[in-house]
Amino acid sequence: MAVYTDVSDDALAAFLTEYDIGALVAFRGIAEGVENSNFSLRTTQGDYILTLYERRVDPADLPWFLALMRHLAAHGIACPLPVAGRDGAALRELCGRPAAVTTFLPGVWPRRVQVAHCTELGTKLAALHLAGQNFIPERPNALGIEAWPGLLARISADADRLRPGLYAEVTRALAICRDDWPAALPRGQIHADLFPDNVFFLDGALSGLIDFYFACTDFLAYDLAICLNAWCFEADMSFNLTKSRALLLAYQRHRPLDLAERAALPALCRGAALRFLLTRLFDWQNTPPGALVTPKNPLEYLHRLRFHLTTSSDRAYGL
Amino acid sequence: MAVYTDVSDDALAAFLTEYDIGALVAFRGIAEGVENSNFSLRTTQGDYILTLYERRVDPADLPWFLALMRHLAAHGIACPLPVAGRDGAALRELCGRPAAVTTFLPGVWPRRVQVAHCTELGTKLAALHLAGQNFIPERPNALGIEAWPGLLARISADADRLRPGLYAEVTRALAICRDDWPAALPRGQIHADLFPDNVFFLDGALSGLIDFYFACTDFLAYDLAICLNAWCFEADMSFNLTKSRALLLAYQRHRPLDLAERAALPALCRGAALRFLLTRLFDWQNTPPGALVTPKNPLEYLHRLRFHLTTSSDRAYGL
Repeated sequence: MAVYTDVSDDALAAFLTEYDIGALVAFRGIAEGVENSNFSLRTTQGDYILTLYERRVDPADLPWFLALMRHLAAHGIACPLPVAGRDGAALRELCGRPAAVTTFLPGVWPRRVQVAHCTELGTKLAALHLAGQNFIPERPNALGIEAWPGLLARISADADRLRPGLYAEVTRALAICRDDWPAALPRGQIHADLFPDNVFFLDGALSGLIDFYFACTDFLAYDLAICLNAWCFEADMSFNLTKSRALLLAYQRHRPLDLAERAALPALCRGAALRFLLTRLFDWQNTPPGALVTPKNPLEYLHRLRFHLTTSSDRAYGL
Repeated sequence: MAVYTDVSDDALAAFLTEYDIGALVAFRGIAEGVENSNFSLRTTQGDYILTLYERRVDPADLPWFLALMRHLAAHGIACPLPVAGRDGAALRELCGRPAAVTTFLPGVWPRRVQVAHCTELGTKLAALHLAGQNFIPERPNALGIEAWPGLLARISADADRLRPGLYAEVTRALAICRDDWPAALPRGQIHADLFPDNVFFLDGALSGLIDFYFACTDFLAYDLAICLNAWCFEADMSFNLTKSRALLLAYQRHRPLDLAERAALPALCRGAALRFLLTRLFDWQNTPPGALVTPKNPLEYLHRLRFHLTTSSDRAYGL
């Protein structure tokens, strides 16, 4: 949880004069979120989210993210819609950081994932992928398979302090991932970070998808593999096949996977587990004590990776 | 900033069935706040704050706090109003912690205090004290002058790591405070923690006072001394006499200080500075690395204390 940059009342008042969204009513920091500073902003016209983009986001990528959200919102996806200032620009500056106002989405993220959540997620993930098909600009996946050797190189053998043999195990898993990685699959715009805390539900229905700041252009089925990792494991690290099947079947009702995608599912799931294991290991080794954010436990993704190393077909995922 | 306890969707849904406040629309953690976990809760009927009381609040004190807020709200003070469940009880339990829903207050707390804020604060602080006069139950100040020797005893000479000689300086200041402390002054219900982040403003007017979880029964002028410390020093620790005068004059328009209170102002200001210095020193020595909350710098209150040790009459504060 984090608000890294506080916004003075003077700076906020001056910033809001650049918009036509009514007068300030309330302004509170939001505890959720790890990468950026988020505030809930209420004006006489409604509710908004103000985001200050912190150092982990490349400012050069922000126009692409905002354009993607605008495109998706215009195509029926419940995602934050960037709000433009009077001059037409949505990307502005506040307290020395890039900043944007977006619309507020109702809903609550599911702390305890149920099968019905996975069905809803599968339906809306397919809709997201379909809506993204006619968004042309591409953004390479900066945390995709080409980036993993570089991530591994930045992690030291010190990882073995977390678990003896971990560094060697991750190194072997990376070699397996690179050997098995599919050469070509249907590509498009993916969210790439669709964890439960980025998905809101209201009365059982998915009401919003947020946090598009890892979105990129990559294999569509890789997004599904990220969701299988993030939504279908229980707290004891057991894999819930019922949730996996519900997610995949709901997805396929709107965008059926082709044979190559189905065959690649174990490899994609291994890759997705490895990606989060690598970035969490990096954060675990590089978060100074006393930081605002407590690093997430990398080992949760080691257990997922080990599971996916035992699978050999899409049947293991309920297809 | 802190949300110490996360609330699962199931637990929240079950909790809300105990209320008659509409259906859930949104639920987000609030970054502000150090002692308790706070969430902004929107329902189809409006906006609320859900607070889970964490370990620093004594559950036995909660009925008094909630009754005081109810009393003050009924007497025109813009403070959170506890919302009762269907059974009439406002104090309930959620995720193993005492919990309460209160009304949402509009406004933004001032990051940069202006003289006009101090005038508003003085007016509303006097109103708070007057409204509290017919609230009969008393709550002793657990962090009042009787508690300071005990607080000092829990701080070790290790404080000198922060500044050489600090421990001896604090020990001397405590002796001076005890010698000079007034025996009797007008008493009543005080907020006792009215820092800028507990006071909301909207269009220049004070729109809300929050966080009554240090409120207690003590000298009314001591509350004013806490505000003089919290609102009238600049970032470079210089004392802003214009702000102090504005605060005191506005207060006196509604509740004039008597001669004993005016004479005690230097002693009360020293005591208030010492109280926050002691608790911040304790937190600084006892916050584990990696805690959610970064301890506040104790030395800010050492500088204030030193200033108040140079004053000898209320003239130093602009009267």
